[in-house]
This record gives sequence, structure tokens and C-alpha cells, in this order.
Amino acid sequence: MSGVETYLAEHYEEALEDLKAFCRIPSVSTDPAFNEGILAAAEFMANRLKKAGFASVEVLDTGGHPAVYGQVISDAALPTILVYGHYDVQPPDPLDKWASPPFDPSIREDRLYARGVSDDKGPLLIPILVVEAYLNNEGRLPVNLKILIEGEEESGSEHFEPTLERNRGRLACDLVISADGAMWRPDRPSMTVASRGMVAIDVTVTGASKDLHSGRHGGSAPNPIRALCKLLASFHDAEARVAVPGFMDGIKSLDPTILTAIDVADFDAGAYYREIGTPKPDPIENGSQLLVRQWLEPTLEFNGIFGGYQGPGTKTVIPSSASVKITCRLVAGQKPSKVIEAITRHLETNLPAGYGLQIEPHGPGSEAFSVDPNLPGLLAAESVLAELLGSYPLRVAMGATIPIGTAFRKYLGAEVIFFSFSTSDEDYHAPNEFFRLSNFRTGLVAWARLLGRLADHPKLEPTIII
Amino acid sequence: MSGVETYLAEHYEEALEDLKAFCRIPSVSTDPAFNEGILAAAEFMANRLKKAGFASVEVLDTGGHPAVYGQVISDAALPTILVYGHYDVQPPDPLDKWASPPFDPSIREDRLYARGVSDDKGPLLIPILVVEAYLNNEGRLPVNLKILIEGEEESGSEHFEPTLERNRGRLACDLVISADGAMWRPDRPSMTVASRGMVAIDVTVTGASKDLHSGRHGGSAPNPIRALCKLLASFHDAEARVAVPGFMDGIKSLDPTILTAIDVADFDAGAYYREIGTPKPDPIENGSQLLVRQWLEPTLEFNGIFGGYQGPGTKTVIPSSASVKITCRLVAGQKPSKVIEAITRHLETNLPAGYGLQIEPHGPGSEAFSVDPNLPGLLAAESVLAELLGSYPLRVAMGATIPIGTAFRKYLGAEVIFFSFSTSDEDYHAPNEFFRLSNFRTGLVAWARLLGRLADHPKLEPTIII
Repeated sequence: MSGVETYLAEHYEEALEDLKAFCRIPSVSTDPAFNEGILAAAEFMANRLKKAGFASVEVLDTGGHPAVYGQVISDAALPTILVYGHYDVQPPDPLDKWASPPFDPSIREDRLYARGVSDDKGPLLIPILVVEAYLNNEGRLPVNLKILIEGEEESGSEHFEPTLERNRGRLACDLVISADGAMWRPDRPSMTVASRGMVAIDVTVTGASKDLHSGRHGGSAPNPIRALCKLLASFHDAEARVAVPGFMDGIKSLDPTILTAIDVADFDAGAYYREIGTPKPDPIENGSQLLVRQWLEPTLEFNGIFGGYQGPGTKTVIPSSASVKITCRLVAGQKPSKVIEAITRHLETNLPAGYGLQIEPHGPGSEAFSVDPNLPGLLAAESVLAELLGSYPLRVAMGATIPIGTAFRKYLGAEVIFFSFSTSDEDYHAPNEFFRLSNFRTGLVAWARLLGRLADHPKLEPTIII
Repeated sequence: MSGVETYLAEHYEEALEDLKAFCRIPSVSTDPAFNEGILAAAEFMANRLKKAGFASVEVLDTGGHPAVYGQVISDAALPTILVYGHYDVQPPDPLDKWASPPFDPSIREDRLYARGVSDDKGPLLIPILVVEAYLNNEGRLPVNLKILIEGEEESGSEHFEPTLERNRGRLACDLVISADGAMWRPDRPSMTVASRGMVAIDVTVTGASKDLHSGRHGGSAPNPIRALCKLLASFHDAEARVAVPGFMDGIKSLDPTILTAIDVADFDAGAYYREIGTPKPDPIENGSQLLVRQWLEPTLEFNGIFGGYQGPGTKTVIPSSASVKITCRLVAGQKPSKVIEAITRHLETNLPAGYGLQIEPHGPGSEAFSVDPNLPGLLAAESVLAELLGSYPLRVAMGATIPIGTAFRKYLGAEVIFFSFSTSDEDYHAPNEFFRLSNFRTGLVAWARLLGRLADHPKLEPTIII
């Protein structure tokens, strides 16, 4: 065991107290009632960075909740790693479902229960403690290390990209390691190497200029709900795949590494459907098919639909409009602009006579994200996990979209790997969020080894990073 | 000119003052803020009946807004006519759209402007004034006449059927004449002889037991909006006719009298679509087709649809349920219970695997209504209109449902004819409601002649009416 690892083991009780103190701060970002908690958490982070030995520690004004920045520059010749994490947490509701209070951390069976402990306070504290261990034990780090801690991750990260853009110089780095993210399953190590992109579109079909009486006008007046449903029914084939012409254009063949991971994973589709509380739908035959759908195929989901009367009883109305809110998840090769075009064309082509149509995309959308399979940082991280966890990590994808993946690439020219020690079953958006303390301990050793192994990480051309 | 008609002409100015006084009372039934106006209008009616010479005048407790009853029994050997009307009115909003205040009656170009003047205060006052003229002029009526004036017609008539049921004995009659209703068009006389029935059903499709993240679960989780839209898209064919198997069962062939009226009417489809503010939909080629659809074909309309997120921006959710509110208009021969069965079977048969289904009908529904084409009261009314208006009235249907048609038949065993002198273009549910005073004068003469002509109306078997 290295000196740093010995130091971390000897100071574990203090580390646990630090984590509990961090978790006592109610830093809910989406609810203004918790603003004091947000500011206290930012202050706590800044102080904890200083105590660990970080220099240039600063609470950054973002225009929203502040971000926290710190750095340890050892040697200009060494590669520079930027660590990302967030100090804000999800709301704790519903409070009555918690076995112990959400902001009063409680240990049961080697798990620490608290709001935010898994997402992302525990995983974020790990690299800070590792830097402290290096500095106290060896007086220096094996790499230059910067850290950027966000306060709006759980509420949409509205000011994150502008903050990156404004701080390009200060944040310049050769690799980003996100302490946010999660291992896919508790029973085997994994690295998330791909996520789907997204476009969002609102669609409204209009009929008469005002609501009409459905008795008097029924049969002669256009009914926008009927027209909208006909349109939406044409969006998917019988297998529930997107059937909009042009939508699939450009899609690359499925990543064989991830297909292998899916095969190895032996995912239990039955357990999945039991968990979400629904019978298995027809097109999904087994767990492998399910994961291919979730990770590697694009979707077009109706997130909301509305029009006409929604109250109790009956109102005999033919509404003047009906609307749907759509988001699509995109896979490698799909261009958001082309997807928006395909959907728009499909709607315009199939709209029956007698109706109007409004199509409103929310922003330009984002492409799918994937890590270069040969990225040295990825290979280093995998080797550490294999060494510590006994089996080589699966390279997995995720169905959701990871905005930071494309954001760091866009503003800093740097690639991102996800090196988090939370697990996706730790209820991080639900009551009784917990963090496995075994993973806390493993994470400390893993980050210590990873930083050591990144000392010879290639440095980016400076022209890219400013 | 008969003595009664001369009397009516000589007392026209007083009649107009009576109508203005009635219209000054803000008897809005749907808004509790107008309760005082409701009670004042009921009192006004009771006093006006007494002044006209009605006996047994009573303000009836219905459990809701009161009804007003009165009768003039001339001779047990004569037929008994029950007149129906309502003293309540629609809300006056939006107030700023009125050229003169809604409860301050104002005459412009031989039209009286006031909320409720066309629906139904003007048409209702006519038979009361005619009874008064008969009694003052001839000392007796040519028939026995009862009158029932409702106070909840504009707010759902919740207590109307129970009131009929409780007062079966008192209300027994050989024919009901509704002073409510409206001539279809100002340019030619018409009699409404049929209306569509109705059933109402709420449908909910369920997926997972709670809302899911559409990134993480998109592709594997069932989306109830998608399933609901697929279901609803199967409800109509390309011509927008109902395509649910069994829905059309039992429908009789189209009434040739009404088809003739439609041919004669020469309805302007272009003007209709301009008025409702929408381009002409594909399946409707001309005005005759339009009226066949509105009057003689059944419909299945989606009155409201909802599920998932409806707010601004984007929420990446797969909702756990999606719902639609449906009402169907039924035509002669359709049984409401069979229609509900057909819809239920269609939904259950076509629901994809992986979804739940809830179907909730609102009550048993109602069959289509039509007047016996040889009903003596109908023939008498038509002959009066032909005589006074210069052309034989068209027999028209209406797309909406007339609950009183089936209610009087059910509780009193009596048929109903609609003999109203308002016109459907008099903005009676909108600002600047008006009543053509020429029709007020015509209506007085028409009712006087109709009562005279009903003296030999057949009497119903007493066994039916109690």
C-alpha cells in the first residue's frame, strides 16, 4: 500500500465526518427556499478546498447559484486534469418517506443515508480528500489538478455553459474527470462511455378559431385532438420504433463494445418491468433487446399532451387546439437539425386539410456523446477499476443525455471520463438516498491510483484549449 | 283579425315594457353571485302569471333554483297543453363587448338588446301574454293550459327531471310546447323535429406505476400517450366517420323529410367555415353534406385529452397515464348501452400489451329524440307558421341533444314540439344578445292561433300520464 493509501485509510473516520458535515447542508438548488443552504454549501466547499491545500480557491459568480473553483499546479510540464462535480442536491420530498431525516446523515449497514450523499457529495469529496492526502504525504500531486464544482446541476445547469465559456483560460486542461455519474449496477464495475443526444419540440394542431359546442358542430367542425392523435399514431411502427421518414438518417452501426457489454450484462427484463410497475410490452423480448433500445436506439417520446376539457364530468366542447410536447433521444450519427427537419416535414406532410400547425423546437438540441474508445484517460481509469474491483469494467452507455460531455468538448476542447463511485440504485432522486461506504473507501484508493497513473497522460495542443 | 289578435296589437307597448322589466333582472343561474336575481326573476314570473289570470301559481322548490308553475283549467273535456320555458340566463361576460349594458334593455333597429331576451325571456313571455289576451278578451282559453318555468336551464337542469317526476300528477298533459328553442335561420321558418342523443365516456391508459425519466427509460418503458394516440387514431376512418365496430349498429335510414329540408336549405358551407374560423376539412364537399353530418350522422368527439407535462419548456418524463374525454352524439336507432359496449370492446381489443385501461361512462346516456311526423300538435304549429310567414316551415334536426324532449316523454308520456320565436343567430350565448321585435309580434299572433287550433287536439289516455 502506498503512503497516500495508508494516509487515506488512517484518516477515514475524519473523511466520514467531513462527508456528514457536507450532507447536513440542505443545498437544494431548484427551490429558492433553500438559497441559504446553497450559499453555505458553496462556502463549505471553498473552505474544504483550502484546507486540502488547493490554491486560487474562489466562489465564482455565475449569474445563478455560484460555482466553486480551486487548483493545485505542481509543474507546468505535467498534464492538467479538471475534476467536475456539483454541491447542489435534489429536493428531499416526500419527507414522510425517509427512515431518517434527509439532512441528518445516518449510517445503517455500512451505508450513509442523506439527501445528496450519492449524488454527488460523496463521490465529489473523494478527489478532494485524495488531493489532501497527496499534499500531506508527498507534498505534491502527480498531475496538475483543477476542480470546478457546480451549484445548479439538479436544476438545469442554466449558467454552466456560459461559465465554461467565460473561464476558458482558467479551466484549460488535458482531460476532464467527472466525479458525477454513477456505476450502472452494484454487482459489477462499469464505465459510462456513451449517452444519447436530445432534441425537444412542441407541436400544436389548431382547428376552429374558438372552442365549439360538440353537439351543434360535431360532424362538421375539425377536431384538433383527432387530427393530433392521427399524426402522433404515425410516429412509431408496430415495434414502437420511430417511423418518421428521415429520422434515422446517418445512424452509425451499433457500437460492438457496448453490444458485448450488453451480452455480458445478462440484464433481467422481468425484474425491470416489475420495478417500474408495468407488464412487459410486446416488442421487448429479453434484457439484451431492452438495453439496445435504451442505450443504442433513438427515441421519440411524447412527454405531455393536452387540449380541451380536463376537469371532472363532461364538457361538450370541440377544442380549438391540441398540443403535444416531444423529446427525442439521439444516437451516434444523428444530427439534431436534421431530426427537427424530419419531424417538421412529417407533420406538415400528414396534416389533414382544415387544420393549422405550429412547431416550436426548444433550442438546437444536442448530439449523442461518446468517449473515444482509445482515450488514454479512459484506459487508465479502466485499469484502476479492474485492479481494485476484480473484473474489467463493462463499457456501458446510458439512455439519458449528459450535457457536460459535449460542453467540455465544446468550450475546452477536452474529453471527459466519468469516474464516480455512486451506483444507480442508490435512490438519488428519491427518499432514503444512500451511499455505500465500501464504495467511498474504494473510491479513495481508486482516485489516488488514477491520479498517479495520469502523470504521463498526453497533453493537448495549447491552440485547442484557449 | 280576431278579437284576441286585436287585443295583442293594442297592448303591444305594455308587452314590450313587460319584456324590458323581465330583462332588467340579472337571473344568471350558473353563478351564485346572481342568486338574488334568480329569486327576483322567479317572483317576477309568478306575479306576471297571476296578473295574466293564471290560477294555482306557485314557486316550486326543486332543491336548486326554483321553478314556477301556473295553470288555467277551462274545461275538463278540452285537451291540456303544458308550456315549457326558462327564466334563467347565461352569464353576461365579457362585459366590455356589449354595446349597451346586458341588463339595461335597449332597442336598436327593431331589435331588443339584453342578456336573455332571446333565450328565453322574450319567447317565454309570449304565451303568457296570449293567455292574458284570451282571458281578458274572451273570458276563457280554447284549451287547458299549464306552464312550467325552469330556473336552471343554462346551468345543466340538474333538478329538472326530479321535479317532473315529483309533479307528474300536476303536470299531466296531452302535449308539451316548448317556448325554448330557436328557429334555425332568420330567412325561413323551421320546426325542429329531431335531435341527437348522447353518451359520454372517460378513458385512461396507464403505463408504469409512476412517471419515469424519458432519457433513462425511453425505448424500454411503455408510453401511455403513444398507446392512447394509437387507439384514438383507430376511432375514425379517412372520412372522419366513426370506425368503431358495432358503433353504427341499428341506425335507421336517414329521415327523408329532413333530407328534403337539407336540400331545400341550400346551406353555405363556405360561410360556415369562415364563421368558425377554419378552412374546410377534406371530407365535407358542400353544405348538404355538412348538414347531413351535423344532423343525421352520429359522432364520436374527443372533448379533452391530457397526460404528462403541460407547462412551459421541457420536462423529460414518460407519464404513467394519459386520458381522453369522449362524447358521442347518437342518431335514431342507436342504443346508448350498445354504443358504450362497442367503444369498450374496441379499446380492450386494440390495447397493446404492457398497458392498463380504465373506461368510465358518465351515466347511461340518452337516445336520439324525434317528433312523430304525424303528431297533430306539430301539424297545427306548421300550419300556423305557413299562414303567418308565407312559406311552409322546414322540418329541421339539430346536432345537439335536447334533454327535455325525452324527459317529458319519460315522466309525463307526452310529446314535445318546439315553438319558439327566437332565431339561432341572436347571439344568445354571446355579448349583444338580441331578439327581433318583428318576431315578438309574430309570435304573439302565432301562439294565439296555435292555441285556438289545438282545441281539438287528441287527449292522451289517462293511464299513460300518471
